[in-house]
Amino acid sequence: MQEKVQQLEYLNEFSALLNSTLDTAAVREKALEATCKLLRCETASLYLVDSQKAELYWETALGETGKQLQKSVRLAIDDRSIAGYVAMTGESLIINDVENDARHFKKSRRGGFVSLTMICVPLKAKDRTIGVLQALNKLPSVPERPSRHSWPDFYEEDKRLLETLSHQVAIAVENSRLYTDIKKNFFDTCEALAEAIEKKDRYTGGHTKRVVSYSMSIAEFMNLSAEQLEHLRLGAILHDVGKIGIEDKILKKEAQLDADEWAEMRSHPKMGYDILRRVEGLKDVIGGMRSHHERWDGSGYPQKLKGVEIPLIARIISVADTYDAMVSTRPYRTGMDPKAAFNEIVKCKGTQFDPAIVDAFVEAFSHGKMGRGSGELL
Amino acid sequence: MQEKVQQLEYLNEFSALLNSTLDTAAVREKALEATCKLLRCETASLYLVDSQKAELYWETALGETGKQLQKSVRLAIDDRSIAGYVAMTGESLIINDVENDARHFKKSRRGGFVSLTMICVPLKAKDRTIGVLQALNKLPSVPERPSRHSWPDFYEEDKRLLETLSHQVAIAVENSRLYTDIKKNFFDTCEALAEAIEKKDRYTGGHTKRVVSYSMSIAEFMNLSAEQLEHLRLGAILHDVGKIGIEDKILKKEAQLDADEWAEMRSHPKMGYDILRRVEGLKDVIGGMRSHHERWDGSGYPQKLKGVEIPLIARIISVADTYDAMVSTRPYRTGMDPKAAFNEIVKCKGTQFDPAIVDAFVEAFSHGKMGRGSGELL
Repeated sequence: MQEKVQQLEYLNEFSALLNSTLDTAAVREKALEATCKLLRCETASLYLVDSQKAELYWETALGETGKQLQKSVRLAIDDRSIAGYVAMTGESLIINDVENDARHFKKSRRGGFVSLTMICVPLKAKDRTIGVLQALNKLPSVPERPSRHSWPDFYEEDKRLLETLSHQVAIAVENSRLYTDIKKNFFDTCEALAEAIEKKDRYTGGHTKRVVSYSMSIAEFMNLSAEQLEHLRLGAILHDVGKIGIEDKILKKEAQLDADEWAEMRSHPKMGYDILRRVEGLKDVIGGMRSHHERWDGSGYPQKLKGVEIPLIARIISVADTYDAMVSTRPYRTGMDPKAAFNEIVKCKGTQFDPAIVDAFVEAFSHGKMGRGSGELL
Repeated sequence: MQEKVQQLEYLNEFSALLNSTLDTAAVREKALEATCKLLRCETASLYLVDSQKAELYWETALGETGKQLQKSVRLAIDDRSIAGYVAMTGESLIINDVENDARHFKKSRRGGFVSLTMICVPLKAKDRTIGVLQALNKLPSVPERPSRHSWPDFYEEDKRLLETLSHQVAIAVENSRLYTDIKKNFFDTCEALAEAIEKKDRYTGGHTKRVVSYSMSIAEFMNLSAEQLEHLRLGAILHDVGKIGIEDKILKKEAQLDADEWAEMRSHPKMGYDILRRVEGLKDVIGGMRSHHERWDGSGYPQKLKGVEIPLIARIISVADTYDAMVSTRPYRTGMDPKAAFNEIVKCKGTQFDPAIVDAFVEAFSHGKMGRGSGELL
């Protein structure tokens, strides 16, 4: 009874832990930790169903030998593997002699790891099987381990315990998936709309995608939080949407623009801001749009902001945008050589650009993370 | 010990229930049910922090008398109310003589409900207090109830139990909030971009917003799932985004369009489809965009689909879009009287429009749920 109370308390604690994040990778890792602790076993695996391909895939493993195993394993949902069988039937299994089970997927024997005993249970969300959770090798209770042959078996009560945990894991996996999916959906939709807007411009295509990619490359060499990285990505996707408001005849003009045309063209950051500023959830993003033509020395537009008055993500997008503009081919001139564009950016360190961001750009460039503009395939 | 096991099993069950949805209202309702069952009390309340206003708000109550109480209560986060005190200090309280507690917020005494005993605990997510959970009036254990004065007190262990539950509730509330926020953000951003695109058109403003509103009004009189309603809303928001691809000079032309111009104008549903079809998460939405100019009898465009070949949401958007086009004022003609537009729609039942949707439209119209086009304020 005492043990039962202990297990239930663990379960409660694990369910809180599992649900305390909507990040898919974190949920998976916590699920495996919880399995190892609750079942007192050597390692654990979590396979998820890829419903498009009707396959199971496995991306993480924990425990003593699990840490190194980052490569992905894929299994068919059929009786050629234990996990496949459980996913197919929705039935839990205890197997106390894994190596001799006909379904044991020999290729999953990883780096000398020997599977002795196993419980394998389905993850079910709203009647669908969304994955399979395995506990592997119940640990002996004595601290010094006896030989492999005398390790304990898993029993029915272990299975019931793992089934209860798998219920919580399934919920946490499903929630994180819903959250991740809607976020991806959001970003993808914005990107598709931004690209459609970009098509009106005389830039050759792919500018938005490249500015996103270059901004993220620069950010790799800065110390941004996950949240800042998200704001940067979305800000880069949306940086030119204000061009919706610019007349076709200016956007599409093949020759150089005259002074009035330039004035209208330069209104695009402000227009983008006007379009999106009432979206409350974009408050940390729209600064990237409004200020991506500001300059570190205060000579940019539309607000003539200076130095750190310019939002950080705008300072990054500014470097990425300028670099892409230089290396890309336009109707009236071919793109610059990347090294020449690189020199230009470095030359403008401290005048047009934030010195710290130029430093990160230099890192990104020298690590081959900046591309060649519209000439390259992304 | 037996009771402890029972409680822990309940807690596990409740945490699964709480996290099995990301719908905010459902989470709140489940939290109150779980509190009543776990604490064996008469009713429960859940106040959430409105961080903009630094206030607590309370929107649901359950239990014997709770069902009727749907109106919103707001409390300051200070010591003038019990919930306000708990939110301010982050400290749990047991109060076994609520009516005589100086902090008891008398106005919350609702419809004859008498508060006898109470536990009030904070909801904490990542060190922030995001709300307050109250259990009210522990029930007597005997089935026939003694007089109010002999109802039992709450004890420390009840408080600890509610604290554990509140931890799970806080996680579920926070997850549903994050999910709801990003969805709102997504929809708001699409709406803002769609409206910016619409501004290029000679329609008077607000067309997109009205088509969304009219589509939802029609859907009220149909039997759509929550998921279908979401697809409909997003499809209506995006229905005209293909107009990004149409030349300004056609979109903005004040006179009637010639044949070639009409041909280009008519390409907008297909263009919208081309822009967004690669966004995987919009697969149930883009049909609404591509097919909102199809007709029930097969004489529409771009694919000349017929009857139920036309996606349901497109058939709804089609009625809403046509109605708004008729009642709205355009540069070259004033809007039609709503009743005349109503008659037109009804006349096209079975030819231009799905008869079932015209029936729903008739219901919506006669319930005053259809507006007056660009003349009205939304």
